[in-house]
Amino acid sequence: MLKYRFFNDYSEGAHPRLLALLAQTNAEQEDGYGNDRMCQQATGLIRQRMAAPGAAVHFISGGTQANLIGLGSLLRPYESIISATTAHINVHEAGAVEATGHKINAVATLDGKLTPAQIQTVVDEHTDEHMVKPRLVFISNSTEVGSIYHKNELEALAQVCRRNQLYLYLDGARLGAALTSAQADLTLADVAEWVDMFYIGGTKNGALLGEALVITDPALQPDFRYFLKQKGALLAKGRVLGAQFVGLFQDDLFFELARHANRLAAKLAQALRALGFDFLSHPATNQIFPILPNALIAELEKIYGFYVWAAVDSEHCAIRLVTSWATREDMVDELIHDLQRLAGATRAQSTE
Amino acid sequence: MLKYRFFNDYSEGAHPRLLALLAQTNAEQEDGYGNDRMCQQATGLIRQRMAAPGAAVHFISGGTQANLIGLGSLLRPYESIISATTAHINVHEAGAVEATGHKINAVATLDGKLTPAQIQTVVDEHTDEHMVKPRLVFISNSTEVGSIYHKNELEALAQVCRRNQLYLYLDGARLGAALTSAQADLTLADVAEWVDMFYIGGTKNGALLGEALVITDPALQPDFRYFLKQKGALLAKGRVLGAQFVGLFQDDLFFELARHANRLAAKLAQALRALGFDFLSHPATNQIFPILPNALIAELEKIYGFYVWAAVDSEHCAIRLVTSWATREDMVDELIHDLQRLAGATRAQSTE
Amino acid sequence: MLKYRFFNDYSEGAHPRLLALLAQTNAEQEDGYGNDRMCQQATGLIRQRMAAPGAAVHFISGGTQANLIGLGSLLRPYESIISATTAHINVHEAGAVEATGHKINAVATLDGKLTPAQIQTVVDEHTDEHMVKPRLVFISNSTEVGSIYHKNELEALAQVCRRNQLYLYLDGARLGAALTSAQADLTLADVAEWVDMFYIGGTKNGALLGEALVITDPALQPDFRYFLKQKGALLAKGRVLGAQFVGLFQDDLFFELARHANRLAAKLAQALRALGFDFLSHPATNQIFPILPNALIAELEKIYGFYVWAAVDSEHCAIRLVTSWATREDMVDELIHDLQRLAGATRAQSTE
Amino acid sequence: MLKYRFFNDYSEGAHPRLLALLAQTNAEQEDGYGNDRMCQQATGLIRQRMAAPGAAVHFISGGTQANLIGLGSLLRPYESIISATTAHINVHEAGAVEATGHKINAVATLDGKLTPAQIQTVVDEHTDEHMVKPRLVFISNSTEVGSIYHKNELEALAQVCRRNQLYLYLDGARLGAALTSAQADLTLADVAEWVDMFYIGGTKNGALLGEALVITDPALQPDFRYFLKQKGALLAKGRVLGAQFVGLFQDDLFFELARHANRLAAKLAQALRALGFDFLSHPATNQIFPILPNALIAELEKIYGFYVWAAVDSEHCAIRLVTSWATREDMVDELIHDLQRLAGATRAQSTE
Repeated sequence: MLKYRFFNDYSEGAHPRLLALLAQTNAEQEDGYGNDRMCQQATGLIRQRMAAPGAAVHFISGGTQANLIGLGSLLRPYESIISATTAHINVHEAGAVEATGHKINAVATLDGKLTPAQIQTVVDEHTDEHMVKPRLVFISNSTEVGSIYHKNELEALAQVCRRNQLYLYLDGARLGAALTSAQADLTLADVAEWVDMFYIGGTKNGALLGEALVITDPALQPDFRYFLKQKGALLAKGRVLGAQFVGLFQDDLFFELARHANRLAAKLAQALRALGFDFLSHPATNQIFPILPNALIAELEKIYGFYVWAAVDSEHCAIRLVTSWATREDMVDELIHDLQRLAGATRAQSTE
Repeated sequence: MLKYRFFNDYSEGAHPRLLALLAQTNAEQEDGYGNDRMCQQATGLIRQRMAAPGAAVHFISGGTQANLIGLGSLLRPYESIISATTAHINVHEAGAVEATGHKINAVATLDGKLTPAQIQTVVDEHTDEHMVKPRLVFISNSTEVGSIYHKNELEALAQVCRRNQLYLYLDGARLGAALTSAQADLTLADVAEWVDMFYIGGTKNGALLGEALVITDPALQPDFRYFLKQKGALLAKGRVLGAQFVGLFQDDLFFELARHANRLAAKLAQALRALGFDFLSHPATNQIFPILPNALIAELEKIYGFYVWAAVDSEHCAIRLVTSWATREDMVDELIHDLQRLAGATRAQSTE
Repeated sequence: MLKYRFFNDYSEGAHPRLLALLAQTNAEQEDGYGNDRMCQQATGLIRQRMAAPGAAVHFISGGTQANLIGLGSLLRPYESIISATTAHINVHEAGAVEATGHKINAVATLDGKLTPAQIQTVVDEHTDEHMVKPRLVFISNSTEVGSIYHKNELEALAQVCRRNQLYLYLDGARLGAALTSAQADLTLADVAEWVDMFYIGGTKNGALLGEALVITDPALQPDFRYFLKQKGALLAKGRVLGAQFVGLFQDDLFFELARHANRLAAKLAQALRALGFDFLSHPATNQIFPILPNALIAELEKIYGFYVWAAVDSEHCAIRLVTSWATREDMVDELIHDLQRLAGATRAQSTE
Repeated sequence: MLKYRFFNDYSEGAHPRLLALLAQTNAEQEDGYGNDRMCQQATGLIRQRMAAPGAAVHFISGGTQANLIGLGSLLRPYESIISATTAHINVHEAGAVEATGHKINAVATLDGKLTPAQIQTVVDEHTDEHMVKPRLVFISNSTEVGSIYHKNELEALAQVCRRNQLYLYLDGARLGAALTSAQADLTLADVAEWVDMFYIGGTKNGALLGEALVITDPALQPDFRYFLKQKGALLAKGRVLGAQFVGLFQDDLFFELARHANRLAAKLAQALRALGFDFLSHPATNQIFPILPNALIAELEKIYGFYVWAAVDSEHCAIRLVTSWATREDMVDELIHDLQRLAGATRAQSTE
């Protein structure tokens, strides 16, 4: 029996305000398939927060589905996607993108982030119809290894995309964490300005389920509901998704929850740094990857839930610790306390 | 402003017991992607109710998604599906099945139900590799026009399928209504015995969302979660779906809710019959299709929400009235009262 | 051992002039993948014959491949195709079109030909994103039952398509036969004017293999070679296909060969009519479908190769007789002679 | 105007014996779609040469088509393919494999050849349904960079595949060159024994077009013609393909032609080595990749056709020289002569 779980940011249900909204509106008769009043209200709130009154907003139950539908809607059959090798679509979606027929041109990166030069290289290598035609750049923010894009980086990506007729797509499963990182200088409005299509993640930031897919360019908006329906993403009771985003975007709850997760991760990171531990990637959001001695990891695993991410050398691994909107601060303090205790013990042991 | 809506059976949220379950379990830390304790409990309850302890049960957010994943998992690329022309997959899923690569061999029917002879004819017409190879029979119960399969009919379908190496798949979006119809002689255990794959519809019978896909044959069970993941159907918080089905299958709430919907539809049907109206298809479940004079329909539409289904002749249309677990009996009585009043008035008018 | 075969129009190899061209150019070093000089020359000849200097022409090895690539290039994933139920794509391509993800809305016809009214009905039935979106009309000329479109019919189809934003696609596997029918008033230039994409069939009119796909609208031309490559249709030695069409379109051989096939079929039809036999569809091209007594068919099958097409009543079937560019007139005369002999004999027998 | 072209091995038409066969059999009436007597005869000849009497053999017009059909027939939708990054399917088929829905797990190699250890690593990294499931190893022999697999290497690959339930598939576009390399110790019978599916390339070894796809395991043979038809690969006049392989496998012409190409490439390689030039990959077959000074390349390009393959440093590139069954030895001698002359001249120049 574990004391507490730092496996991921979707271990608990929903923020209580979102459940309350569901209960309050439960008896009302609504139109189906996303045409209900809550989806309309949520769309309005999100458009306002993005300062993008003409954006289309669609609510989808999960991130893999959002990606496969969004990407599939943008590409002709022979067009390909440029992404980092670590991208969720390249590793952890069971080939969902290829199942829609598109190749991913995966690029190895240092920190999960693509650069304009890497993109240009891929484009330049693809010269004729014997190869796929790169047409879209896929990035995640925050990335799968917890890093974030800064304002000037996103702008530079947008520019290389425009110069090469590439769409820029952003997977925002953890966009809340990215935008509220203490190191961030990017706003939701910036994202809406520079990215052709992206989604705002609800599931990993306090919702029962749901991602809000945003299409800012009017030319890309028509017929999108056909894609949703054809892939089984138009929930009969779309109101459930609408209610999540009404709750998240009323009173900026979305940002407040993400800030909470980031703050607790930063607290953990600081304590680990104080104990002399390094990180696989620079801590910036609610996912951190400290490198610990295997003996310490073995002890920790008896008390807490987390994933061992990657072997660093024969005696050390990076682990992944994730905090969320629901993480209890007392449990973070407990973990820090246990880390201090165990780090001392295992260090003592190894120097005996 | 409409007095009440009989558009469909997904106008309201969820049965209060299901919402309560979500709230009660909200703070618990659970494994993701359907590996939580609620999905396990729901699986156990459903297996028990079906008397099929070895069945695999997967929870999927909606019916179109369940169909496209389930059917796609059973077929090789050149294999086709035999269905009624009225089948949901043939009309109302935006080509989701074809988008997985498979042709539907659609057969015109009298009442939305396939017969063994129709199936045999399609099989016999497909003789070599210049044509698709029919490999699966798709039925809905209740059907899209409200009719139901009887025990002997289902058994006969299963037999013609086995003789021809065809899978039998059942879309149970409204399986609750089918099994609790006053005219039904079929049980959930019968379905589990004769059908290779089917789903038990939650969305249209009291859940916020969710369908329980059942695979009885152990040979068809391996690797099914790959299909779920690849099509974006593995919700990170699968617990939401698990909770719906725990709630529905504890104390037989699933059947109680369906019975309620059927009873109110039958009450409506009886009143309509008493007024001398006929039906497009024989009323059996919670969807009824009375044929009314256009003048009466025009008056009714000012007060109630429903769909005009099909023109029958130049002066009459069939409309669709749907009741659900949430339908209020006082509103049904009100509708009957208004029908009696308006039927008299429009009749008087037309004979002036 | 059969005396002669009327099974189809691809029983023999190629017209000798086409083989000669292959031999003459065999040693020349050419660019691959359709960039050779013969493909260029053939393109020029076809453009000239169509009076469409800006048309794109691509050479593809067979009709099913031409259809699946051409149709797939025109449609977005949720868009569907309207065709006759008898259309080759709907029956005899093993679900190739559905395998590219698209539904076919098949319409029953009298003679294999679609009418503007039928098309409008299908369009009008498809109202929202729960259904596919019809976007293309597929016709064959000559049709799969040997009938042909007249000038005013094709123009009317083009108009209904333009009014409804539908592409018009023509499968010309037997376009030669259609254009040279004694009953035809349509030219290749007419086809190029009214049809968005079509192919000119070589395989069934004297080539070893090869169909010439034509795209007249410049907006539909870009990137088409990507589709060809991705579906395996860019032959390394594209020169083989180029040589076929150089041979066919030099000195109008294409039309001469089709005329030969039509003339012999008409001769057969006239003889059958003289014997008092009727036809399943009005004879117009190189495929005819006489209705014969089963006893006569049984005798004929001992001597000649042909397909029994459809049972007409308990004592009669329609058979399909096909002539081609290679059909020997002495064998047609022989068949007529045998028909006269056998018809008398079986008639005598049945009246005994 | 170039003196001679070393661009590839498909610049000329077909070996004269193959054209003669087409002419000799041209007037015979044959069954369509690969059921003709020449396809049957070719199948027999190939089975005999492989010592695999139970193998299925299918004739397909080109390599990309053979790959997309063969691979697609073996995999379920979530299964992936392990290949070298340089594999034809990964680079030069316009995403044809992904268009059938499957991800390629590409592995960087030294010489275009996969090792058992690399395969095992990929398998071990794929642990659950959030990822694709590797199910097939794709190799080419000879590879895209001209290297070949030795007997013990192929056997080791087959073993790692069997241990991990992976299919082994071999792209034999240049199998002739691989088997007749002076360095080869592998036979066609060895390939048939260890590989689950492979094709014997005709197009690049003397045929007008055509690849012979071989399926040795009887369990993988059923229904394969459905795949062929659905992807447009069943040519109506399959006899054309049959004739190519009758010609190639009568009197071992296939091996004789490949030997000729290899011998001339070896002659070139020896001359280049004598001039002090190195190679990008060890010369083994009919494709060689000498590394030359850019100044020399610029001069050579005025006289001969070939591709510049890759920049090696700022002053050198590797070029690709390809010989074939049709390459004239006098032209190879001419090229060697010009190389000697130009190498001296550019060397003199650069040391001035």
